[in-house]
This record gives sequence, C-alpha cells and structure tokens, in this order.
Amino acid sequence: MRYTFNLKTLLLATCLVVPLLFGNVNAQDEAPEAAPAAEESPVQEYLDLVEASGGADLAPAFDFFTVSMLWTVIAAAMVFIMHLGFATLEAGLTQSKNTVNILFKNVWIISIGLLTYAAMGFNTHYPCGSWQIENWIGFNGPISGLTGGENDTWGYGGLSLAMTAYGDFIFQAMFAATAATIVSGAVAERVKLSSFMIFSTILVAVGYTVAGSWHWGEGWLYQMENPFYDFAGSTVVHGFGGAAALACVMILGPRKGKYTKDGIKPIVGHSMPLAAIGVFLLFFGWFGFNGGSVLSANPGPLGLVFTTTALAAAAGAVTSIFTSMIVLKKPDLSMALNGLLAGLVSVTAGADSVSPWAAVIMGAIGGIIVVGSILFFDKIKIDDPVGAISVHGTCGIWGTLAVAIFGGANFMSQLIGVIGVYLFAFIFSFAVFFLIKLVMGVRVSEEEEAEGLDVAEHGCPAYHIQ
Amino acid sequence: MRYTFNLKTLLLATCLVVPLLFGNVNAQDEAPEAAPAAEESPVQEYLDLVEASGGADLAPAFDFFTVSMLWTVIAAAMVFIMHLGFATLEAGLTQSKNTVNILFKNVWIISIGLLTYAAMGFNTHYPCGSWQIENWIGFNGPISGLTGGENDTWGYGGLSLAMTAYGDFIFQAMFAATAATIVSGAVAERVKLSSFMIFSTILVAVGYTVAGSWHWGEGWLYQMENPFYDFAGSTVVHGFGGAAALACVMILGPRKGKYTKDGIKPIVGHSMPLAAIGVFLLFFGWFGFNGGSVLSANPGPLGLVFTTTALAAAAGAVTSIFTSMIVLKKPDLSMALNGLLAGLVSVTAGADSVSPWAAVIMGAIGGIIVVGSILFFDKIKIDDPVGAISVHGTCGIWGTLAVAIFGGANFMSQLIGVIGVYLFAFIFSFAVFFLIKLVMGVRVSEEEEAEGLDVAEHGCPAYHIQ
Amino acid sequence: MRYTFNLKTLLLATCLVVPLLFGNVNAQDEAPEAAPAAEESPVQEYLDLVEASGGADLAPAFDFFTVSMLWTVIAAAMVFIMHLGFATLEAGLTQSKNTVNILFKNVWIISIGLLTYAAMGFNTHYPCGSWQIENWIGFNGPISGLTGGENDTWGYGGLSLAMTAYGDFIFQAMFAATAATIVSGAVAERVKLSSFMIFSTILVAVGYTVAGSWHWGEGWLYQMENPFYDFAGSTVVHGFGGAAALACVMILGPRKGKYTKDGIKPIVGHSMPLAAIGVFLLFFGWFGFNGGSVLSANPGPLGLVFTTTALAAAAGAVTSIFTSMIVLKKPDLSMALNGLLAGLVSVTAGADSVSPWAAVIMGAIGGIIVVGSILFFDKIKIDDPVGAISVHGTCGIWGTLAVAIFGGANFMSQLIGVIGVYLFAFIFSFAVFFLIKLVMGVRVSEEEEAEGLDVAEHGCPAYHIQ
Repeated sequence: MRYTFNLKTLLLATCLVVPLLFGNVNAQDEAPEAAPAAEESPVQEYLDLVEASGGADLAPAFDFFTVSMLWTVIAAAMVFIMHLGFATLEAGLTQSKNTVNILFKNVWIISIGLLTYAAMGFNTHYPCGSWQIENWIGFNGPISGLTGGENDTWGYGGLSLAMTAYGDFIFQAMFAATAATIVSGAVAERVKLSSFMIFSTILVAVGYTVAGSWHWGEGWLYQMENPFYDFAGSTVVHGFGGAAALACVMILGPRKGKYTKDGIKPIVGHSMPLAAIGVFLLFFGWFGFNGGSVLSANPGPLGLVFTTTALAAAAGAVTSIFTSMIVLKKPDLSMALNGLLAGLVSVTAGADSVSPWAAVIMGAIGGIIVVGSILFFDKIKIDDPVGAISVHGTCGIWGTLAVAIFGGANFMSQLIGVIGVYLFAFIFSFAVFFLIKLVMGVRVSEEEEAEGLDVAEHGCPAYHIQ
Repeated sequence: MRYTFNLKTLLLATCLVVPLLFGNVNAQDEAPEAAPAAEESPVQEYLDLVEASGGADLAPAFDFFTVSMLWTVIAAAMVFIMHLGFATLEAGLTQSKNTVNILFKNVWIISIGLLTYAAMGFNTHYPCGSWQIENWIGFNGPISGLTGGENDTWGYGGLSLAMTAYGDFIFQAMFAATAATIVSGAVAERVKLSSFMIFSTILVAVGYTVAGSWHWGEGWLYQMENPFYDFAGSTVVHGFGGAAALACVMILGPRKGKYTKDGIKPIVGHSMPLAAIGVFLLFFGWFGFNGGSVLSANPGPLGLVFTTTALAAAAGAVTSIFTSMIVLKKPDLSMALNGLLAGLVSVTAGADSVSPWAAVIMGAIGGIIVVGSILFFDKIKIDDPVGAISVHGTCGIWGTLAVAIFGGANFMSQLIGVIGVYLFAFIFSFAVFFLIKLVMGVRVSEEEEAEGLDVAEHGCPAYHIQ
Repeated sequence: MRYTFNLKTLLLATCLVVPLLFGNVNAQDEAPEAAPAAEESPVQEYLDLVEASGGADLAPAFDFFTVSMLWTVIAAAMVFIMHLGFATLEAGLTQSKNTVNILFKNVWIISIGLLTYAAMGFNTHYPCGSWQIENWIGFNGPISGLTGGENDTWGYGGLSLAMTAYGDFIFQAMFAATAATIVSGAVAERVKLSSFMIFSTILVAVGYTVAGSWHWGEGWLYQMENPFYDFAGSTVVHGFGGAAALACVMILGPRKGKYTKDGIKPIVGHSMPLAAIGVFLLFFGWFGFNGGSVLSANPGPLGLVFTTTALAAAAGAVTSIFTSMIVLKKPDLSMALNGLLAGLVSVTAGADSVSPWAAVIMGAIGGIIVVGSILFFDKIKIDDPVGAISVHGTCGIWGTLAVAIFGGANFMSQLIGVIGVYLFAFIFSFAVFFLIKLVMGVRVSEEEEAEGLDVAEHGCPAYHIQ
C-alpha cells in the first residue's frame, strides 16, 4: 500500500543481497557424492558407509552417531512446529482485526531467521575462535563447506555433539528465530509491519547470535571460572527474547484504549481455540527444543529431559490455575495456558540436571510467578498482549537461577549470565528499535490501529465467515 | 467466581500436597552424572557410554537399546499431541459457548494426569509385586530413584522393554490422562468444572492405574491361564474411558433441550475445522500410541503396527461414510471423523498380531458399529455430545474381541478382560461421580447451562471475532 | 440427500469389493511370530533379533537398519500430517459455506488412498518386473506376504532402501494420496462430491501409481540412458497432481461470479488462521516427505536434505513476499504462504543433490514463479481457488529442471520426464473426469453452488458460532 521503492530496496538488500554477498553458491563444492550402488550386499553397503566415517572397526560407534543425528533433525522439525505454536497463540490472544498481520509476521520471522542464520548467524553464533572482540563479538560469514569429510561424520563434533555439520546448523537455525517471535507477540496490534520486519531481521541475525556466542559459542559466559549453565536456553533464548520485547514495548507504548482514566481495560483475545492450539504445539515442540539439546540420543539424559520438561509444564499449569482462581476469582484459561509455558521456560535451563520433583517445584513456582508478572506489567502499563515478557523474560530469570538451587550450578555465575544477556538484549533492542523509530517510525497511525492492521497493512481481513 | 476457599483448599491438596507428601525432592540423589568430557575421541566417548550400560563388548546391543529408547520418547511426544486432538475434537463438536470450558478441562487433565502419574500412578500401574490385594490392587508412592545404574540402561527392562526407567514413565504417563479425556467429551456442556476437576483427578490417579495394573502391571488378567491380550489398550485405555463416560453421563443426564417431546433435537457442533484438526492429530498421535507400544524399535513389528493402524483407520472412515449415506441419507462429516477413530480403537488391541487385511476388516466393522452405537445411545437418551462412549467404549469391545478372531487370542479371556475392565470402570466412576454429586453437585445450573460455561464458569467467551 | 442406491453400490464396489477380491485375509500367513520370551538377557534377546535378520556377526549393520526403519515410519507419520495441512489450507482459502465439503473430501482421499494403495497401488507402483506393457504399465494385486523372512530384514531392500516391506508400503502409501489432494484444492467449491470421490479413487489407485512406476518403479524414465532424476517427487508427485488439477479445472469451469464482465472478482478465503496452520503443517511434514526419501538414516544426506528443504522454503516465502509487495502493492499473506510451499516444491526433486545456497536460489525463484503463475492462470480464467496448479504444477516443472542446473542431472532427461508425466497426468485425468461428467456430471447445480456445498451436499454447516 504505502511501501515506497526505497523501503523495498532496503528490505531486499537485507535479506537477499547479504547471502549473495557472502554466499558460496557452488554446487560442485558442496554437492554430496553419489550414493553407493544398490547392487552390493547390505553388509558391504554398511561397511562402505562406516568406512566413510572413519574405519569399519568403529561400526557400533557409527550407529550411535547415526541415531543421534536422526534425533537431531527430528528435534529440529519439532522446534520448527513451535513457530506455528507461537503464531496461533499470538493470533488467538489478540483481536481478530490483526490476525493476518500476526500470521504474516510469523512467516517472515521463520523465513528470514533461517536465511540470515545461514548467511551469517551460524558462524557468528559459533565463532570457533574467529572473534573480532575476543569472547564477545565474532561476526562471521555464511555457511559453506559443511559437507564432505569430517562434516558428515562424528569428526565434526564427536559423540557429545553427535550430529553432522548440517544437523548442527538446522537444529540451531530453528532456535534462532524464536527470540524474534517472542518480541512479535509483545508488540502485536500496533507495530508497523515494515519496521518490525527490519527489526526482527537485525535481532535474529545480529543480536541473538552475539548473545548466544557468549554461552554456546564458548565466549565469556563459558569462560568464567564457574561457567554459566543454561541447558537449552532459559536465558539465552527465552530471556533474550523477553528482554528484547520489553525494550520494544517501552518504545512502542500501549495499545490505544488499554490504559484509560477509568483503569485497565482488558482487550480480550479473539479465539481461545487458536491460543490453545498454539500452547499445545509449543509443549510438543519443546520436547524437541529441550530433548534435542542433549545433542545426542544418549538414553539416560534423554529420558530425564523428557520427564522434567513434561512435569514442569504440568506443574506450571496447575499452579497458575489455582493462582488465577485465587487472584482473579476465576479459572482463567489464558493464565492456565501461560502457566504451561511458564513451567516449560522455568525448566529449560536445567532440564538435564535436576530431578523430576525439582522440576515440579521449578515449574510450579514458574506458574505462580507468571501470573504475578503479567499483572505487574499490566499495572505499570507495559502493554504485552500475549504475556510474552512475563512468560519468557520473567520465568527465564527464575529458570536460570533455579539451576543453582536444584541443579548444582553456581548462583553468582547464573546471576551474571542473566544480567549480562538481559541487559544486552534490552539495550541492543532499544537502540535498534529506537533508531528505526527515528528513521521510519515503528507504530501505525491511530486510524490504522483502530481499523486493524489486516486491512490497513495487508488489505485483507483474516475471516470471512458467512 | 463461586469457588469457595474450602474447595480450593481441597483441590490444592489433591494435586499439590500429594506429590510433596510422597515426593522425593532430592536433586543430589537423582541428578545425573556430569557428561563425559568432550575432549575424548568419539570412539572413546562411545566406549565410555557403553561401559556405563554394562560392558563394551555389548556395543551393538547398546545401539539397539539407544534407538529403541529414542523411539519411546518420540512416541511419548506423539501421544501427548493426542491431547490437543481430543481438545479440539471435543470443542469442535460442541457449542461455541462452552469452548473455553472444554479447552480448560483438557489443560487440566493432561497436567494433573502427568503429576498424579508421577505421584502415585506409575508405581500403582506397575506394582512390581507390591500389591495390597494380590493381583488386584497395589497402591504405591511417587516415582523416585529412576536414574542411575540399571535404570538408565537395558538393565531396566531388557530389549523387550527397551527403554530407560524415565522413558517408561513418560510414555505411560502420556497414556494415563487419555481415559479422563474420553470422559471429558461425554460430559461436555453441562458438567460443573470443579466437580470434573476432582473426578478426573481421581479417575486418572486411582481408577485407570488400578485397572491397568490388572493387565500391564501383571495382575489377574495377565495371570489367567490364557492371558488377556490387549496390545495398546482397546480395553484398558479406550474401553476404560468409554465405560467411565457412560457412568458419568447416566448420573449427569442429557443437555437441556436435547430430548424433547417432539423427539431428539440435534445440537450441532460449532466448528467442523476444529473437529477435523482434532481427528487428524489423533490419527497422527496414534502412530505413537500403537507404534510406541512395540516397546522397542524392532523393525518387523514396527512396520506391521504402522500398517495395520493406518489401514484400520482408513477402513473405518470409508465404512462409516457409506453407513451414514445409507442410514442418515447424507455423507456426514462427523460420522466420517468418528469412523476414522472407530477404526483406530478397533485395531489397537491387535495392531501387532493381525495381518493388514484383517486390520482392514476390523476397522471396517468398527466404522459400521460406531454409527449404530451413536444412534443407539441417542435413542436411549444417553447424551454423549462427541460420541465418545461409542468410539472408545463400543469399538473397544469389538477391537478386543477381534484379536480372538484374527490374531489368535483366546476368546473367553478377551471376554473376561472386557467384562472385568468395563464393569470396574463403570462402577468405580459411578461411585466416585455419585459421591461428588452428593457432596457438591456435578451439574451447572440451568441458567449457567443456557448461558454457556465459558461465561458462567470462566468469565470469558471463546470467540470475539469482529 | 440425492445419492441413489446405484451410486452407492458403485462406490462400495470401488472401495470395498476390490480389496476383498484381491485381498489375502489370512492372518495365519501374515501374523508375525510371537515375541521372544522376556526372560532372556538383553544381549541374548538382541542376538536372537539379529539372528533373525541374517546372522549375529552382522550386528552393527542390523542396528543401522533398525534406526533407518524407525526413520521411515516416523517420516510416514509426518507425511500423513501433511494431509491435515492440505485440508486446512484448502478450507482456509475458500468460502466458509464449503468447508465441511472440503474436510470430507480430505478424509475420503487419505482413507481411500491408503486402501487402494494396499489393494493394488503398491504393487502397481513397484511392478518388480510384472509389467503388462514393459516399463509402462504393470497393474498388480494387493499387498500380501510382506512379513516374515527377508521382508522384515534388510533382505528386503538392503541398506539403500533400509526398511522392512511394511515400512516401504506405509511410507509410499502416505505419498500416494497427495496427488488427489492437490486436485481437491483446485476443484473446490463447485465439484460434485460423489463424482470427485470416484475420480480421486481412480486417480490415486491407477493414474498416480502408473506414472510413479515409470520412475520409482524402474520403468522407462529410469531406463533412459541418462535416467530422469526426481529425488522426492517434484514431478512424479507434485507435478502429477498439478497437471491433473489443470485438466479437472478445465472441464469443471470457474466458480460462478469469479470472472465477470467487470473483470476478475476475487473470492477471498474465509479463515487465514486455518490457511496458515495448513502451510506450517505442510512445511513440517515436508521434512518427512523429503527426509524420508533418503530411504535410510544415513547421516550425511539426512542433514543436507533437511537443510536444503528448510532454506528453499524460507527463500520462497521471502521472494513471494517482495514480489507481492511489488506486483500487488501489498504484503499478501496468501502469497507468502504459497511462496513457502513453492520453495518446498522447487527443492523436492533435488533436495539431496544441491548445495544449501543453490537451494536458496531454487526456492527464491520458485517464490517468484508462483506469484506470476497464479496471476497468469487467473488471467486465462483457470479458476484454482487455492493456487494448487501453480504451487505444485508450475513449481514442479521448475524444481525438476533446476536439478539439471544445480545438481548435475541431465537437462534433456529432466525435460522428457516432466513432459511425459505432466502429459500423462493431464490426459488421464481429462479422460476420466470427462467420462464421469458424461455419466453423472461433475459439477453441482447453480443453486447448490450458491447455497454452498456444506448444506447442499452434507446437510450441515461448518460453523455455528453463537
């Protein structure tokens, strides 16, 4: 509608030129060898495969690697479906007039997230020694040469990172877009589409990968005497997204009509079935998120992680249900749903290193915290339509610190990690989003907000039920 | 709204105090060993892993165990997503004014189901000799000590139960809540929320686990000379839920306006897309339900079970479509959807022990039976909004007996098993639900029923589409 | 409503008598051996298993086979869920008054697809030398004898087809119904239900399997000097469906009111959340579709295929977004969604044999092509409500030819394959659909179309939101 050619050019540059600049479009280099001829005996085929991985006497270890790699890619697919969960949860908890906009943002985020992660994210997330500022910032170029030789075998990561290079890439790429998705929920119903597209691209390509490199890229959080411990990302994924969301909401301001002279006016979600679909899909995907973070199919940790993940979610739902009954005087479905998610965020940092009953307590406390946090942010007029700041940000803090209480991590290290990542996410997001505000604005006009972004930005309502 | 403090206290006790009473919140005891250092060679890492499972000369068997355990947890996640399927199917086939209530009940059931299964269900389901009444009742406490030593290896269950102790727990925990979910559909649109929360907690924690122990816990059904055979639970899961649902509906009575002087007035579902999403997700999850019940990744049985499961579902849909065309004079979508489920329930008891063409016949007959059963229960004024009693109860009987016809089980044993489990489920549910009726009532007021439970119980409508 | 007994008889014959004619309902023959007694040691159990697969000295190869077979059945389940994706996408992009009809068609297609694939499809798809016309047509009977001996071991397909016979069957069966589902979207909102049920049965049972036998059944496309290359089916699945859809739409004509004297009148979809759920589920399932087509769990190809699949989808979405911004002057959600699918179809033929950056280019071009193709078909008054012809047909051509550009296939062979399969699909579908038109008509009456098929054909609206 009102997209100028300059804006389009800018966006195009962001997402298309970057990979081409860095990209290595060289099919010969990367294309895999032809498959072995099908005429051989099964055992001979197998020995050929194993030979390519380092020697036929290692056959059993090769099989462990194979099943681990399979789990990695299945887990990646499960994390992918979390993006549908985020999309439907966000759509369900907001007004019907902004639904197309929300779905569109989520298609954008997963797509640009995958592309930028290939173009620069992966190698920035894991600098492997290529830092510009030692242990703090290591911008690097696109993926290339991830196939052939060691990259297709355990030579890539051993059996503690039992996946091929592409397995590592695709699993981490699915994580990367999560942070931006969290922000999407908090800024829903009034953010300008083009501004959000640019912001989310920068957040996922630069902000998330830099913060992640401090921990998973073996940067300063990993180098501390007592290393910061965050198993699957209570802080470096969920906390990062929650803090970024807070910064954006502060710049953006609340939705019109939410905070009036007569008090807080709830803006109810338009479809609770959509919201419930979203939360159940997120719960399902979380088994890939946490379970895949075992980084192999090692049976012991895998069983523990599935158990702690599920029990923490259940406990979060139950306590948020009772908390809502007591505080809100009704059994509130959106609180129950957010309680499930709160339990999941609360156990994500320690899912591999706490007992099931500790997970129940961690989730149960998360389920209480999230209700309080949602009410608190509403009170101080931070308008977060879906409760993303509370679910991911507040519970991310609790989950990370809880590993010190229940899982043997060092409390000070956990605290330093939380402060470092949250501060960075907040400041980075504030700076970028503020700059975008200065240049092109971040908020739709009052008329567009009243009309709804679906028609105003996309020229198409979400529903047409006769 | 009208929750008194006493009720809240009671509910809190049921779901929070119980685990704390029995629970063993001892992170030290259960926390896993630190992962081996990443500096070793892959093969050395592998040998360490295998050594922890019983000796490096057993490496190939360890790998079979690893892939089997992976399948167990993936199957658990697939069974989990069935709960979203149940929730959306139930919501879709009922009125829009009761949708929040239905979603809320389903969040509750999966959450409290997981927690009570940890608190007492698992060890009651599998008493391992700790019976109070030999082979009949064996109440036992919370899970604990499921990690370390044999529990993380094949020492737990060998290769016929090729999973760690946590794998066993989480897979079975996902099953446990199913029975209560089946009841949820049958009592929809008029059950009092708090009463249902208490009933479903007791049903899943006590009723289901006791009945299950008779078969899977090696109780009296397993001890018969010709053991009762129920592969994945046509009787002990679906039949149990269906019989419990019948008892509850008999106490609860039909929805207002359903059975009038002028005959049966259909109350149509409010969203067929939600219903269809539910059934397809149930079909998807059933691959985990039946496939996971192989209890290992043994390739032969796995392929057979996936094939029989899919073909029976397909046959059930096709025959229910034609039956509805003939009987109802129209191609009825809800009958087609229930036909799919009928086929699945009909093959669940014998999915591993019948041929694909036998599965087609079993499913096809199930698809005819379900239409007749739904019409029959409607005729005798048993008001089951989603057809749960017919799908799970009636087809559960057929599926269990069909194993004697097509799969070599003993007919009398199958019949005894059906009668035993169905009678127990019915009587137990009738007694508990009736007691709850005496104490606090089980049905909302006429005004609340007319208004819809969403606003009456939860203060929030499900939809707000502008 | 207006189903005559003759029609019902005909349909019943098509789908029930056929399997009974050919079917081998012989439980004794096919039922698996009893499981080994649980009392043995894990290692002994394992050795028994391996022994049944060809000798205990082959244990590591057996484990590779086991994990590969597990992946096959999981991938089959993921392909299954694509049918829910197709159903919700099609429902979302069409009018609410035709929703029940669309859901019903999709239940029918997956069900009859599975049954006919068992009854004749599988053995026609893979004639294994039993051709009636050498390398062109090989009709064969129902599956039977797929268990026991070699069929349950690598004796069936070696490690290049590392699955049991049932694994092979169920994975391919899930693919088979896809072609008919593609047609379903294109003919939506005006096709006569009974006619479509018959057409789709014939298409999936006969048309798809014959075309597929040319390539995957090692027919003439496989026998060319430079064999046609289509990894997971850009041409033999998606192209086939797209070309069939074009034929049907040409016979059927556009929806009333779409092409008027005053130009093209868009008929907007009734629920964008349903459409988005559909596309995300299709993306998720595509990991099984492409990933499962590796036909083993070989870690190298598996990681590459997941990566190329995801990046092509992302690139398709991004370019279709910008193309829609430029051409349609708005960021169009349905174009973004179709762009994702376009990227997926574009990479399906070459997902295992191109580099990730080549996949980005293939997907990016697909995302541009799909917008142009949709606008083109609309201009020439080919009314395809969901864009299926463009997404699957047009992008299928591009994806197949792109393997010659980026993946080393022979361009002429690719072109011949495209022309051969598309022509056959078009002519076969045109002939069958035209014949059905002559016999019983293929289009509902104008009154029924105006009223909507839900009430006219099924007697039940999809929504009843109060």
